[in-house]
Order: sequence, then structure tokens, then C-alpha cells
Amino acid sequence: MKLDIAVLPGDGIGPEVTAEAVKVLKAIGMAFEHTFNFKYGLVGAAAIDDSKNPLPEATIDLCKDTDAILFGAIGDTAYDIDPDANVRPEQGLLGLRKALGLHTNIRPVIAYDDLLNKSSLKVKQIKDTNILIFRELTGGIYFGKKTLSKDGSTASDVCEYHRFEIERIAHSAFKAARSRKGKLTLVDKSNVLESSRLWRRVVLEIAKQYPKVALDFMFVDNAAVELIKNPRQFDVILTENMFGDILSEEASVIVGSIGLLASASKGDTHAMFEPIHGAYTKAKNKGIANPIASILSAAMLLDHFDLVDEAALVREAVDKSLKLHITTPDLNTKYDNITTSKVGDFIEDFINNPEETNLN
Amino acid sequence: MKLDIAVLPGDGIGPEVTAEAVKVLKAIGMAFEHTFNFKYGLVGAAAIDDSKNPLPEATIDLCKDTDAILFGAIGDTAYDIDPDANVRPEQGLLGLRKALGLHTNIRPVIAYDDLLNKSSLKVKQIKDTNILIFRELTGGIYFGKKTLSKDGSTASDVCEYHRFEIERIAHSAFKAARSRKGKLTLVDKSNVLESSRLWRRVVLEIAKQYPKVALDFMFVDNAAVELIKNPRQFDVILTENMFGDILSEEASVIVGSIGLLASASKGDTHAMFEPIHGAYTKAKNKGIANPIASILSAAMLLDHFDLVDEAALVREAVDKSLKLHITTPDLNTKYDNITTSKVGDFIEDFINNPEETNLN
Ligand SMILES: CC(C)[C@H](C(=O)O)[C@@H](O)C(=O)O
Ligand SMILES: CC(C)[C@H](C(=O)O)[C@@H](O)C(=O)O
Repeated sequence: MKLDIAVLPGDGIGPEVTAEAVKVLKAIGMAFEHTFNFKYGLVGAAAIDDSKNPLPEATIDLCKDTDAILFGAIGDTAYDIDPDANVRPEQGLLGLRKALGLHTNIRPVIAYDDLLNKSSLKVKQIKDTNILIFRELTGGIYFGKKTLSKDGSTASDVCEYHRFEIERIAHSAFKAARSRKGKLTLVDKSNVLESSRLWRRVVLEIAKQYPKVALDFMFVDNAAVELIKNPRQFDVILTENMFGDILSEEASVIVGSIGLLASASKGDTHAMFEPIHGAYTKAKNKGIANPIASILSAAMLLDHFDLVDEAALVREAVDKSLKLHITTPDLNTKYDNITTSKVGDFIEDFINNPEETNLN
Repeated sequence: MKLDIAVLPGDGIGPEVTAEAVKVLKAIGMAFEHTFNFKYGLVGAAAIDDSKNPLPEATIDLCKDTDAILFGAIGDTAYDIDPDANVRPEQGLLGLRKALGLHTNIRPVIAYDDLLNKSSLKVKQIKDTNILIFRELTGGIYFGKKTLSKDGSTASDVCEYHRFEIERIAHSAFKAARSRKGKLTLVDKSNVLESSRLWRRVVLEIAKQYPKVALDFMFVDNAAVELIKNPRQFDVILTENMFGDILSEEASVIVGSIGLLASASKGDTHAMFEPIHGAYTKAKNKGIANPIASILSAAMLLDHFDLVDEAALVREAVDKSLKLHITTPDLNTKYDNITTSKVGDFIEDFINNPEETNLN
């Protein structure tokens, strides 16, 4: 297969982790005789530094002209703290989601057997957790009208949802649930919000087309508790943009490190793959950033093109690295000198030679 | 002291837990020679059943005419699931907050030494956690304009904040931080929301008046992680309505049961005290509801009137009940027959005779 892949490393630790994902994709390309062409673009703080624009036209064009996008991270704290800044790295990511219509964000949360004791939670509580979070990504309060009154005394953001926005992601989530354990939990705040009541109404309707999927409902505040107390109860979670942001990041505590969580953001014509973590500026250029989330995002990219064996091999390599403790310090590995690129090297070696790879 | 206390038991387990808090307040009244008059009113599903109105005028008048309000819980699931219901129990609670101007909600999160092993989290992580959450309660997306288009295809909610709404709660939070460990964390999503940027701007300004308080900032998605990974880093958390709802409920996992968390909701002229848990309909009338959150809310009521020794005695009694495992089943007590009212009885007995109370 021939694929043109836009690579947007972004800022903070983005470039470091993305380099490892590219390394891994190159190894897969060699091993399976695919032609992957990588085309680099600027976004976030890196783009602001270059052109004062967090999302240059050239980057959008690049993304539109390629088959898929591998995204690193954005949100360098140097730009992030000031509420009066008028360019912010986030505008790059949010603008890209909107420009490419990436409405469906998919975030798997899987408790790895070899990492159970790294979790903040008790082992018996999290074992076998396997959740797929569907987060709506181009609607809601992120993209509604924003106002600031002239005198600066009043600010507002509108959370708006249209029926079609809910329908399209709901179908994807129900289909996923049907092919998994058959359970879908809609998380909303329909006891307070009109937009949540629309979600509930539309999802109730669509549920009729998926009679084998058991649908239940949870208020977002309660979901924030249940995710910790009993994560195994969940199969597929479906929710709106802001709630999905909070809950999927919260869910990282189950897995032991946010540096493990990958995501896919899909639209009707484009797809982007990115770790759920941010720029983590403090760790920049120290070789301590965990590249696994980025590498697993690359695996989701392979899945997207039905390169199933390829994706499986990447995941096998990741499992092996975790089992052998070839991990960065966020996972309190027993070795203290495993850098970002060593993790990538191990996974690359494994792909080249699955039978024989061990720590060297 | 003479106090008129409005008691609004609400629905679900509200009446059961509130009865225990009243029992405790009566014991305190006797022990310290105060005159507490309890005046009952209907709210939530109980009021809907009575008059189809979740917040009758009579209830508002009662609250306005008394010195403080003790609130139980609302949200009977019988009314809660249908997105098309036009009366909902929540309207009672939200309407009351608005009608009485209860803008500042204060939620303590304390890891009890005797309960550390009941938490979902690892003991070493939570020991000595003591957080005070300030949640804005009458603004934001809860009370902004709500619309549903005629054809039902579009719904929206507005999150709006005014400078004065942020200022008043920020002052309370800074004062609390100053008298505690001197740290205040503002939780917002100022990388995306205009309203959050206003929060950040106003809080930065007000911080100048509290030079001894160290101010820091956290995005809400990250805060949802940090609350679990490292709760001890927090002293006072300040945040807007919706984020406060999610985070304070999430924080209950630290403490081991949401049945332990109390809150005070204060305005310029009125104050209400309520558990942070909801109606928990499944547990209704089974004698298994934990009354501690309601009893600790009563202790916050006593604090509010500077009845410091009285509040301290209630807390001492609660500590003792936890130490002796006189707790409802949510805490997996070693006794299996401790009902809601037995917990209340124990605390009442302790107040009557602090030296001699034990399980009988
Ligand atoms: C950086 C930020 C705008 C973004 C979001 O909130 O969507 C991030 O937290 C994420 O979850 O991808
Ligand atoms: C019942 C509901 C409206 C309420 C809220 O969201 O404020 C509750 O969850 C709370 O936190 O007091």
C-alpha cells in the first residue's frame, strides 16, 4: 500500500514522541513492503514561532492532500498561561479538527496486565478494564459562539449541538459496541442542560436500530466517580466534546500513565491520529517523554487502512516493551536509563525481528 | 442561641439521611442549651408528587424566613431519565440556589485515617489529603440561556460569567486558603473558553490582595487526573459551576464513599447545607444510606453560626463512629447490620455522653 502521511509534531514533547512513531511506521513499511511517505508541517507553538500563526494555510493544505495525519502534541506552557494572549497553540489543534471535519474522536482505555501495579487504583479494581470512549470533537462549547463584553465584565461560550452531529457519532459508537461487549453508556448532564437532553433523545432513537446493544445513561459527575470506582462496568462510552475531554483524560489514571493513551479523530474525508497527552513542556528535550501513546496512535492509523496485521505487530511490540520494563520513567520502570528513543528503538527492532528482540 | 432551621428532606434517600442530621442537631441543642426550631418543607420529587411543582412558593418562603436550610437530596430516577419530562426534581434544587442567591458552594474533601483502606486509591497516595473545593453555584452553563429549536434539531446552553460573580467567590476562596496551607488552584479551561479566560484574568487580579497565597492554574482535564494521582498537592480549589460539579463528585473516590461528603452553599443573606450525594433511589427505604454526609453538613451549619465547639463535637462523634466501624455498608464495614438510623443513634449518644459511648 502507498500512503502519504502528514506529520505534525507540534510543540513541547510532540516532536520527540512523533519521531518514534515515524520510526515505527518506517519499520512497518519495510517489513510489509508498503510505501509510506512522510510530509512534515508546523502547528501550535512551533508554527507561532515560525509565522505567528498556530495553523498556517500550508499545514491545512498538507493535511488535505495526504491520506492521514500523525499529530504530536501542542500547548507549550510558555503560551498557555496568559489569558490575554491572542495566539495560542491550541488554536492549531482546534482549527485543524474543524477545518478537516474530524468529528469523531476515539480513545481506547486498556489496563495492561503488566502495568496493573503502576495504576493509581487498586489492581483488583482495574484488571481487564477495556473501554472505548467516543468523544464528539467538532461541536459543543469548544466551537460555539464566544463573547467578551467591551468593558471586559462578561464572557460567554455557547454549547450548541445539532441532531446530525449527535447521530453520526452515535452510529459509530453503537457499531463499535455491537462488535465488542454490546454495552453503550451515554454520558450527559440531561438533568440540567438542554443540549444534553437532545443527546439523550437522539441516542434513544438511534438505539432502536441496534437492538443487541444495551444502552444506559450516566450523569457526567457520576461518571467521573464510576470510572474510578468500577471501570470494568464500561464497554463503550459516548459523550459530547467537553465531557469527553475531562473523562478520557481522567481515565488515564486507570492505565498508569497518560503517556500510554492513543486516539483517532475521524471525519467523513480525513483522519488524524494523536496521543491524548499534551505538550508536557517540563519534559521537553529530556528524553523522558513516553512515546507509546504516539506509537499506539500510529497503530490506530494502520487499523484505519485495514492494515490489521501491521497494527497487531506494533501492539505486540508495545506489549513486549511493557513486559520487559523497557519504559520511560513515568511508569517507574526498574531501569533508570530508558529514554524516549530507546523505547522506539526496541519497538523498531521487534518489528524487524519479532522472534529475537530483547533488551540490549 | 435560637435558630429557625428549614428542613427540606427532598426525595430518594434524602428523608432518611436528613432525619439523622436533625437527630444530631437536636442532641447538640440539648447539650449546649440552644433552641433549634425545625420547619419542614417539600422540594424535588416529593413536591412534584404533592403539587406537580418541584419548588413550591411555600418552600421558598420558608427558606427565606429561616436562619439556615438543611437540605437532603433530590433526583429520584423515576423522573430523571426521560429527556422530555417537563418537571424534574433538579429544578427544585437549582431553583432554590438561584432564588436564595447561594453563589458559593464549599465542599471539603478529607481522607479519614480510619478509612484509608476503603478508598479506590492506594493508601500512600491519599493519606493526609485535605482539600477545600469552592464551586461557583449560581452562574455558568447551569443558569445561562437554554434553547431548543422548534423542529427539535438544535439545542444550546450558554455558559456566561460576570466579573462580580467571580470576584465574590474568589475572595472567599483566597481567604480560606490564607487560613489554611496558603495555596489556591484555579481550575478552568482557559485554553478554549472565553469564560475561563475571564476567570483567570479576574483571579490573577484578586490574587494581588492576597500576597501570602500561592496561586496556580490547572486545566480541568488535567485536574481530573491530578485529583487522583496526587490529591495531596491541593489545598483550596476554586472553579466554576460545571467543573466544580464534576471534580467535587470525582473527589469522593479519595474519601472512600460519596456518602461522607458534606457541603455548604452560601449567599449574601442565606445559607444551605447539604450532602453532595444525590437521591440514590436504589437505596431508598432500605436503611443502608450513609447519613454522615448529612450529619457533617449539619456540622457546617453549626460552624456557620460560629458554634465552633458544637461543630467540633459532631465531628468528633463522626470520627469515633468511623473508628469503631459503626458505618453503613457503602464503607464495607465489618458489621453487617448497621443501618442509617443506628449510625445516627450512635452519634446522638456520643454527643449526650462523649466519654462513654461505644457500640451496643
Ligand atoms: C489542547 C486541548 C485544546 C485539547 C482539548 O481539550 O480537546 C486536549 O486537551 C485534548 O483532549 O485533545
Ligand atoms: C442534582 C444536580 C442538579 C446537582 C448539580 O449538578 O449541581 C448535583 O449534582 C450537585 O452537585 O449538587
